[in-house]
Amino acid sequence: MKRKGLLLILSSPSGAGKSTLARRLMDWDPSLRFSVSATTRAPRPGEVEGREYYFKERAAFEAMVSAGEMLEHAEVFGNFYGSPKGPVEAAMAEGRDTIFDIDWQGGQQIRSSSLGRDVVSIFVLPPSIAELDRRLRARAQDSEEVIAGRMAKSRDEISHWAEYDYVIVNHDIDQAFAELLTILQAERMRRDRQPELAGFVRSLNREFETR
Amino acid sequence: MKRKGLLLILSSPSGAGKSTLARRLMDWDPSLRFSVSATTRAPRPGEVEGREYYFKERAAFEAMVSAGEMLEHAEVFGNFYGSPKGPVEAAMAEGRDTIFDIDWQGGQQIRSSSLGRDVVSIFVLPPSIAELDRRLRARAQDSEEVIAGRMAKSRDEISHWAEYDYVIVNHDIDQAFAELLTILQAERMRRDRQPELAGFVRSLNREFETR
Repeated sequence: MKRKGLLLILSSPSGAGKSTLARRLMDWDPSLRFSVSATTRAPRPGEVEGREYYFKERAAFEAMVSAGEMLEHAEVFGNFYGSPKGPVEAAMAEGRDTIFDIDWQGGQQIRSSSLGRDVVSIFVLPPSIAELDRRLRARAQDSEEVIAGRMAKSRDEISHWAEYDYVIVNHDIDQAFAELLTILQAERMRRDRQPELAGFVRSLNREFETR
Repeated sequence: MKRKGLLLILSSPSGAGKSTLARRLMDWDPSLRFSVSATTRAPRPGEVEGREYYFKERAAFEAMVSAGEMLEHAEVFGNFYGSPKGPVEAAMAEGRDTIFDIDWQGGQQIRSSSLGRDVVSIFVLPPSIAELDRRLRARAQDSEEVIAGRMAKSRDEISHWAEYDYVIVNHDIDQAFAELLTILQAERMRRDRQPELAGFVRSLNREFETR
């Protein structure tokens, strides 16, 4: 019997290192599946369907929500974003874990969904707000207004840290990655995530009987 | 605020490597406390009070049980064995984890005790019964009858594997130890085991406010 894949939810304020951690984790285990969100916003130059997003018309997106095909969804600045359920269920059936790079609202919805008991949720905190600010400025030439908006969103995101199973403070990306890996490896060792054990114990019992 | 220590319960049939794993874990982290059992059986030559066991008169043992001072206890071949609660609570308050090398009956009792939510329970399985038998014979010149009795007890112990949070199959002691370490490290990263985070997030919020 194959292990059912788990749902690894990573949330953090923008700039805390969550995307780097997710990418490293997928390099470490290529069987991991990254949950690509669906969105109604228009593709930006360079964005590829199915890589950055699944781009949907509004009516198609709403039809998926109505049909229960979104694990979670939210409206942000007039556009819809959501996590399609089908690919996650397919990965789970194959024993592959899915990584979600989503915010606290998505995290809440997935935890309370039918797949909630397969969720492992991790919140990544920055070492300081000064450092978060530095990382946000380093990666884009955004206006002060855009940065202020991001910081307000970061503060809102951080306020939900206590809803997560695990918390990693990203002082150092290598250390944070080691911690993330430790969590994933331990969660895979949970008894209820090792369905092959039942057959193994049956084989031990047969050995007892034939001694 | 200090982290509350957790209760790490290791169970396995005799010969599956549990004691070696416990010893290695304590070498790795000397702050770990090993739960020394109390017993009414007489000390054997070389046994030291407080190291192998706390040796108690029957009346004293029963008084501790009546007073709720035993986390778990059982009668085995006419002698009582139990885990005193006081030292565990003292260790927890100091943020030190306690390792229990106990059987499934003790595990069940501690899980359903008032400290149950601080328990992390791990079952160690042997790779095969032939190997278990080999390890039992290698370490003592016991009679066939004694060995048969141990094997019957092992089978009973193994039948309870599915009550544990985690399962490790000890094919190789180094690999099994690495898995045990991974579990302990991950459990320490659980959000509810990092009470210092609340203060840390308050400091992040102060930083937001003073920007």
